[in-house]
Amino acid sequence: MLNNYSKPVQIALKKAKADVGDKIKIIGGSEESEGLLMPRIELGDSDSIVIKLNSGYNIGVKYSKNLKIKKLESASETKPHFEKSKFDPKKPNVTIISTGGTIASKVEYKTGGVKAIENPEELLFNVPELREIANIKFVSACKKMSEDMEYADWQTIAKTVAKEMKLGNAVVITHGTDTMHYTAAALSFMLKTTKPVVLVGSQRSPDRGSSDAGINLICAVRAALSEIGEVGIVMHGSTDDDYCTFNRGTRCRKMHSTRRDTFRTLGENPIAKIYPNGRIEALTQYRMKKDTKTEADTKFEPKVALVKVYPNSDPDVLNYYVKKGCKGIVIEGTGMGHVPTHAKKAWTPVIKKLTKKIPIVIVSQTLFGRVNSNVYENLRILFHDSGAINGEDMLPETALVKLGYVLGHTKKIAEIKKLMSENIVGEISERSTISD
Amino acid sequence: MLNNYSKPVQIALKKAKADVGDKIKIIGGSEESEGLLMPRIELGDSDSIVIKLNSGYNIGVKYSKNLKIKKLESASETKPHFEKSKFDPKKPNVTIISTGGTIASKVEYKTGGVKAIENPEELLFNVPELREIANIKFVSACKKMSEDMEYADWQTIAKTVAKEMKLGNAVVITHGTDTMHYTAAALSFMLKTTKPVVLVGSQRSPDRGSSDAGINLICAVRAALSEIGEVGIVMHGSTDDDYCTFNRGTRCRKMHSTRRDTFRTLGENPIAKIYPNGRIEALTQYRMKKDTKTEADTKFEPKVALVKVYPNSDPDVLNYYVKKGCKGIVIEGTGMGHVPTHAKKAWTPVIKKLTKKIPIVIVSQTLFGRVNSNVYENLRILFHDSGAINGEDMLPETALVKLGYVLGHTKKIAEIKKLMSENIVGEISERSTISD
Repeated sequence: MLNNYSKPVQIALKKAKADVGDKIKIIGGSEESEGLLMPRIELGDSDSIVIKLNSGYNIGVKYSKNLKIKKLESASETKPHFEKSKFDPKKPNVTIISTGGTIASKVEYKTGGVKAIENPEELLFNVPELREIANIKFVSACKKMSEDMEYADWQTIAKTVAKEMKLGNAVVITHGTDTMHYTAAALSFMLKTTKPVVLVGSQRSPDRGSSDAGINLICAVRAALSEIGEVGIVMHGSTDDDYCTFNRGTRCRKMHSTRRDTFRTLGENPIAKIYPNGRIEALTQYRMKKDTKTEADTKFEPKVALVKVYPNSDPDVLNYYVKKGCKGIVIEGTGMGHVPTHAKKAWTPVIKKLTKKIPIVIVSQTLFGRVNSNVYENLRILFHDSGAINGEDMLPETALVKLGYVLGHTKKIAEIKKLMSENIVGEISERSTISD
Repeated sequence: MLNNYSKPVQIALKKAKADVGDKIKIIGGSEESEGLLMPRIELGDSDSIVIKLNSGYNIGVKYSKNLKIKKLESASETKPHFEKSKFDPKKPNVTIISTGGTIASKVEYKTGGVKAIENPEELLFNVPELREIANIKFVSACKKMSEDMEYADWQTIAKTVAKEMKLGNAVVITHGTDTMHYTAAALSFMLKTTKPVVLVGSQRSPDRGSSDAGINLICAVRAALSEIGEVGIVMHGSTDDDYCTFNRGTRCRKMHSTRRDTFRTLGENPIAKIYPNGRIEALTQYRMKKDTKTEADTKFEPKVALVKVYPNSDPDVLNYYVKKGCKGIVIEGTGMGHVPTHAKKAWTPVIKKLTKKIPIVIVSQTLFGRVNSNVYENLRILFHDSGAINGEDMLPETALVKLGYVLGHTKKIAEIKKLMSENIVGEISERSTISD
């Protein structure tokens, strides 16, 4: 773990029996520094010893032969004990609702693995700048990596948001990135609000030198205190640490497994650039914040399925889902929303049969662009003859969540059809011309 | 259909009882022009009457009161009768293998619908420039919109390519765009070749003013005659009509339902920009063309399935597929390849049970970036404990086609695992660092 330090630093640390994660004291002349020894991850000056102070800030102490290094506690005994921040009546109040994920994780330096932090307040230890912006309150809604999130978690989060807003607090939700866009879509539909509701995560755990957690969290708090009255995801907008983007909750997607600027708004601009210093640069129109009451309407039908068509795909999977009790299906068609129509395994006859029982919504696996129910003969068979619902330019993940939400509120097919094809909270953009 | 013409033009055409699609003669002073009356689609000078000459070229005749317009044949009687091109021994030979799709369609001006052309040679009528570049031979492999393509069509196309290459011809395949990337991946694996194999389509039918078919076809023929010894898709590289891109067949995807620059290479650069005049600008490394024999190895197992995980998704669908006789499954996981692991509906136990019978390959629904089998505990459970195969940075569609190809050639799980995780024809890029 001392690998990236220069040879002389490694020798000095080994002599003091100090390893990464240990609490150490460094004495150099009249100066003393005390904190956790950090790994040397960043490139650059490998001759400086990096320690994390009790305040949460990291400092580098330039190595010289005269430094005295003393190990105070070994990593196993060390607990982060950071200074409690004092309530400042002049600052706004922000509740950070913690749900788990990488942003609420840390690297175990001994094993190299990533594990959950025990206490969400540890975030302040890694991002001490937050205290300068607002009085931060932590609430834990759950503790899950986001691939394990379920609709019941969305309901809990929505209710917690409504509760904290009732107290007058602005709200940020920390969340694993993998399914954050599904949660963002769910909260967009469930929360009747005109205030900012900001989801944020990180692609690297907050204690790593290259972590995006710090800037993401700072920008998320800035966004939560802004005039943008929408539900959205605030994460890195570029691969640099310069700004974040506010992505509308129903229009974005995790688009890269590892890059820090993984969340992208598709088919329109992100709502705004958010800079760590609080500057906000609008990139498109958004709903202005109003001081109305926030309510959580969390009724949801979880028995909805997302199915993708592809060459040789078998439409019998639709029958399977309906037999299992599925109440609605979203199909990712190809191009303008096509499904195999004249292929040996034709989907349209099965769809025609099933739309008498359940709603079937068509979106496009291209991700960009709109479904069209008219241009080609096969589209007319699908929409006009077989009764499929045109999902317009909804993202597949958003359409799935919306269908669960709509089915949680009505069983009337005409109403479902209407709601699925019209815009409720920004999930369907205005019709664009075919030529774009 | 005369809508976009100026009022005086409309009046003159109506007086001559001429409608779009009719064969007309326009006499103005000493000049005479004869051809099909075209609709006025493009913006601009709506005072010129557009007719398509027998050569295939369109011309605009400026309207004046002195023009005489005579209707020769009505649209229903009119058949395109274009000049046959003469064989030129100095020009290279290119076979265009036609399979159907929008590029092999035309707008029926009377109904506004899009229907298939009867004869692939009609393409030359719409893109007469092709004759200047090469001697063009047409072969029809099938006549389908691409959403109806099946693996048997891939096999037919692969064999037709091998046959035409044996004759010494360069090869272009015209194809519907919806599933062109699935076909491109299939041909990449099936064709043992070191020559260019170029797929091309269009987002607008070739007889429309805004069609991309012309430039796409010209660039496709240029690419087929180039030194790029790979299977790929050549389509518009931007929304302008300036150049096309050559996209590696295993690394690209249709990314927009309507835009002309819909095909995008993901995770790396396209191979090259191809300009209509024949200029080629390499954007990354590619396999240089060599004059070796092309063979089609088309063995394929069509019983493979593509399944996407999402919050609340039920892993029982995997059991369903295996019961139906499915021989292998590709799962689109979230982020670095996660599946619900500690959720109520946990996927890992089902995967662990099924990987004793069939291969299960994990790719990421982010589309960009790589699967990782180590960083998080849930990933270690999936890959090390449950036996899933790491699909690296393969695109989901490519992984599905590859699994069908691999299963067509071996039933040995160790061999399948090895083949699915290693690069065969550019489908897996070299490992990048986690920090990109």
